[in-house]
Amino acid sequence: MPDYKAPLRDLRFVREELLGYAAHYQSLPACRDATPDVVEAILEEGARFCEEVLAPLNRVGDREGCRWSEAGVTTPSGFREAYRRYVEGGWSSLAHAPEYGGQGLPESLGMAVTEMVGSANWAWGMYPGLSQGAMNTLSAHGTAEQKATYLTRLISGEWTGTMCLTEPHCGTDLGLLRTRAEPRDDGSYRISGSKMFISAGEHDLAENIVHIVLARLPDAPPGTRGISLFIVPKFLPGEGGGLGRRNGVRCGSIEEKMGIHGNATCVLNFDDATGFLIGPPHKGLACMFTFMNTARLGTALQGLAHAEAAFQGAVRYARERLQMRALSGPKAPELPADPIIVHPDVRRLLLTIKAFAEGNRALLYFAAQQVDIARYGEDEQQRQTAEALLAFLTPIAKAFMTETGFEAASHGLQVFGGHGYIREWGMEQNLRDSRIAMLYEGTTGVQALDLLGRKVLMTQGEALKGFTRIVHRFCQAHRANAALREFVEPLAQLNREWGELTLQIGMKALQDREEVGAAAVDYLMYSGYACLAYFWADMARLAAEKLAAGSGEAAFYRAKLQTARFYYARVLPRTRGHVAAMLSGAGNLMEMAAEEFDLGA
Amino acid sequence: MPDYKAPLRDLRFVREELLGYAAHYQSLPACRDATPDVVEAILEEGARFCEEVLAPLNRVGDREGCRWSEAGVTTPSGFREAYRRYVEGGWSSLAHAPEYGGQGLPESLGMAVTEMVGSANWAWGMYPGLSQGAMNTLSAHGTAEQKATYLTRLISGEWTGTMCLTEPHCGTDLGLLRTRAEPRDDGSYRISGSKMFISAGEHDLAENIVHIVLARLPDAPPGTRGISLFIVPKFLPGEGGGLGRRNGVRCGSIEEKMGIHGNATCVLNFDDATGFLIGPPHKGLACMFTFMNTARLGTALQGLAHAEAAFQGAVRYARERLQMRALSGPKAPELPADPIIVHPDVRRLLLTIKAFAEGNRALLYFAAQQVDIARYGEDEQQRQTAEALLAFLTPIAKAFMTETGFEAASHGLQVFGGHGYIREWGMEQNLRDSRIAMLYEGTTGVQALDLLGRKVLMTQGEALKGFTRIVHRFCQAHRANAALREFVEPLAQLNREWGELTLQIGMKALQDREEVGAAAVDYLMYSGYACLAYFWADMARLAAEKLAAGSGEAAFYRAKLQTARFYYARVLPRTRGHVAAMLSGAGNLMEMAAEEFDLGA
Repeated sequence: MPDYKAPLRDLRFVREELLGYAAHYQSLPACRDATPDVVEAILEEGARFCEEVLAPLNRVGDREGCRWSEAGVTTPSGFREAYRRYVEGGWSSLAHAPEYGGQGLPESLGMAVTEMVGSANWAWGMYPGLSQGAMNTLSAHGTAEQKATYLTRLISGEWTGTMCLTEPHCGTDLGLLRTRAEPRDDGSYRISGSKMFISAGEHDLAENIVHIVLARLPDAPPGTRGISLFIVPKFLPGEGGGLGRRNGVRCGSIEEKMGIHGNATCVLNFDDATGFLIGPPHKGLACMFTFMNTARLGTALQGLAHAEAAFQGAVRYARERLQMRALSGPKAPELPADPIIVHPDVRRLLLTIKAFAEGNRALLYFAAQQVDIARYGEDEQQRQTAEALLAFLTPIAKAFMTETGFEAASHGLQVFGGHGYIREWGMEQNLRDSRIAMLYEGTTGVQALDLLGRKVLMTQGEALKGFTRIVHRFCQAHRANAALREFVEPLAQLNREWGELTLQIGMKALQDREEVGAAAVDYLMYSGYACLAYFWADMARLAAEKLAAGSGEAAFYRAKLQTARFYYARVLPRTRGHVAAMLSGAGNLMEMAAEEFDLGA
Repeated sequence: MPDYKAPLRDLRFVREELLGYAAHYQSLPACRDATPDVVEAILEEGARFCEEVLAPLNRVGDREGCRWSEAGVTTPSGFREAYRRYVEGGWSSLAHAPEYGGQGLPESLGMAVTEMVGSANWAWGMYPGLSQGAMNTLSAHGTAEQKATYLTRLISGEWTGTMCLTEPHCGTDLGLLRTRAEPRDDGSYRISGSKMFISAGEHDLAENIVHIVLARLPDAPPGTRGISLFIVPKFLPGEGGGLGRRNGVRCGSIEEKMGIHGNATCVLNFDDATGFLIGPPHKGLACMFTFMNTARLGTALQGLAHAEAAFQGAVRYARERLQMRALSGPKAPELPADPIIVHPDVRRLLLTIKAFAEGNRALLYFAAQQVDIARYGEDEQQRQTAEALLAFLTPIAKAFMTETGFEAASHGLQVFGGHGYIREWGMEQNLRDSRIAMLYEGTTGVQALDLLGRKVLMTQGEALKGFTRIVHRFCQAHRANAALREFVEPLAQLNREWGELTLQIGMKALQDREEVGAAAVDYLMYSGYACLAYFWADMARLAAEKLAAGSGEAAFYRAKLQTARFYYARVLPRTRGHVAAMLSGAGNLMEMAAEEFDLGA
């Protein structure tokens, strides 16, 4: 991977100038400590840590990978030391509750740091990243004692956490899970079973690992209504806050994967391990859904991270690599050939990556504001509105950002020509690492069903209206502005169409439930392009205002305006294909008999 | 990789039923030996070899990779033995001239074998595959003596060959190349320089390697007009047909790559190596262009190979993996969950792969017929028509088939959920292996410029008309057929639009040459979708006829018809996005100053 440079200017543009984060934080009493000075200091300090400590370990992690032995998992060289510095720097406690040792800063600020961490070194970032799920579970559903014992140490970074959901025969379909939890007389539970695909499930970065495990009680009803949550620490808490005895959870092996080699993906065997129930019995899945949105935004972020990395690598290479002359005549006659950035198709690749990276950044921090409001808002109505908007945007962000992140990573590799395929340049690692994001935390197909089925259709379209209303207001406010007509007119049209499509699919779904699944992914991708159309229009609006006001950073704002134009001209028209596909009906998918798919052999 | 099963039924469908290969071979006197019996025997024998010998080595090659030492390159376990059996089986000599030991069978039949070889094990297939370039060069431009010495041994498979074009500073831009060739008194040349990315450049499969090297003579004009071709064998030919002394070409290292690990990608250092001029001085590039089309079809084939492998793996998994119930109610109530093939989005993925694999197969074997006619046609007019059609279809096939092959490989992985990301299942190898195909033999961008600039616009659209005329005739012939209306009407419309788009871009290009590069990739992808629309319509026509005639293989033909419908409903509408993008003009790509792309840091 080429060196990472944190996009601090763009973060400021999106957060402060576009989304008014300073005012946003001041409007939420719990966020008032996040003054502009504090935010700026954290982002700059975070940028330095990511650029200097994490980015240089990105390739090391890929090459060395993790090593398994009976004794445990060894992470790549430098990972331990980086984690120590991360903890020392207080990064693990940033956005967590002060009563458990956190700094009480907003979740959205934590996400900005996570963006930089993830762009610099995604595999490393997953170790502290996975702790988030455990911390969220404990915050929301733990007893005071559980919080005092586990949450404080997760926040301090002394311990890390995991989420143990998947089993060999069940990923998406958690109703099938078999791990058992039998009550003991002392109030604890005996946990037995096998989990797989547990990211950061075993490692040498911290002295203890707190596994949050989904399992069934003996009297559990079948299916998803019979799942409970348990805390299963690697080492049981000992007397006086120290570590007690080793618990019966072992890492049986780690997976060989396409990428993210620096992160250990573990098979965890629970063999009469001691666990502690968290939350009410049989309500484990419901408990997890309370913070599913934040977890999924954390994965959405991965798409942004790989797009950013692809962009940085590809732009630099495109300016340096000399190959062929521009079709319209030499642009650098003093050199043996022109830098490839003169070629329109190289620019098409670069601008596609740029449009996704910067557009997705706007989407992410807009969603992150809703996280803040849903969590810290003082007014119930305000919290509910934010929660609804977040529920709608989360599956879009998760699936669209990871799909376009993978696409961006592939374009970044393409700019390098044959060199892109070689390890040395890091672009192929970026592509390999990016591919997982469309799978874990719910595949694109699962996100799409969540969006169209649960979120949009089950609310009779209300969830959609929460967002299209915002777009509509934007279009109304700027419809008389001739300079913005190229954006506002197509956006208004798209916004209307979005509602009409929803209605049409909803009507068909009444006749045939399969229509939902048949339209879902095209509907989701359409929604993603539509969201970015709104954010690019708003970014263009802001850039035009800055330029009109004679900003001293004309080049920066001009590039925003040009990228918005590129997006509308060359990316947004992909919606036409999605519209046709989603309206084409379930028939063309469902007619073929399962055994007739492959009669060609 | 899951086990490979050669798609013999589908090959028969495309070659015999759709494209009438039996009559095609009988119409060309040089191909008359390829009787239906001979063809069938070769395909069956080839299928067995690929399934039993090559496919089991596919994963071995990925895991072990090649090992470099001073002494040379060691290929993965089993590769040598497989190559020995390949040579013994006579596979290397199949489609080559009898006067040099070949079997004289048609090139298009060789391609069918190559499809199976490549689908079973692409990395292995590249060793004999690269020999093709050397054989083509020698056939077309070698002296009788050069043919007797080198061509015969390449055809027999005793020796293999390479094409040495790329240097560290030049890939696409061969005009920059620096390798020098100085004449010696004995008529040979002293070759000095360094080549990179030389596939199969060094290995242990054969006793000698014949490198075809691009280099400059001392009096060479600069640029592409000063490049000559040389034969540089690893071992010089000795007395009596044996091996002589080791020549001054050494493999300095092999690349670490994203995939195709079983194939050695070499840096070759030529240190006063002895070379022999082939073809006229300074005409090396022109000589190579004479068989560029065949070489590029060989790479197009890689897209097909990975799509086929993705399809076979994904369908099998989708029928076995149980997860969730169908939205419309349980389909396998006796099982704990339904097989995932019941879910519409899984079917969407499978059918997308299937539509690409089978559609691209039709495109490939149609192009392969033009290769036969261009080579063996007895009538000059007929040869020229085929050559023109081939010139038009080749960049489309190379770029579109490899882009959609990569997409298909990614969908195949997606069907496996998280398991797709794990080595064990082979789907991630398929994706990694597929990524190179969009880069080598000319990137997608290069193919697109070749198509739109050189082929279409430089012939005033004549090259396009050669194909649209065929489509037009098809539409005319079937316009009254109500059963085919769903295909013929949109196809006719698309065919008209294709010409109109070409005209519009051509007009714009007169004003600004950059318009060609700005439209090229979208134009190429549009052309690819349009080509497949024709082939899918024709396949639907044939399937409908077979069904109407009461074929005993109704399921097979029904699946063809259903896949055609899927393609028209859900894939072909992507053309709408490409149309908008290609007509949007060069401005949205060219306006941004090179230094203003990345001001976000």
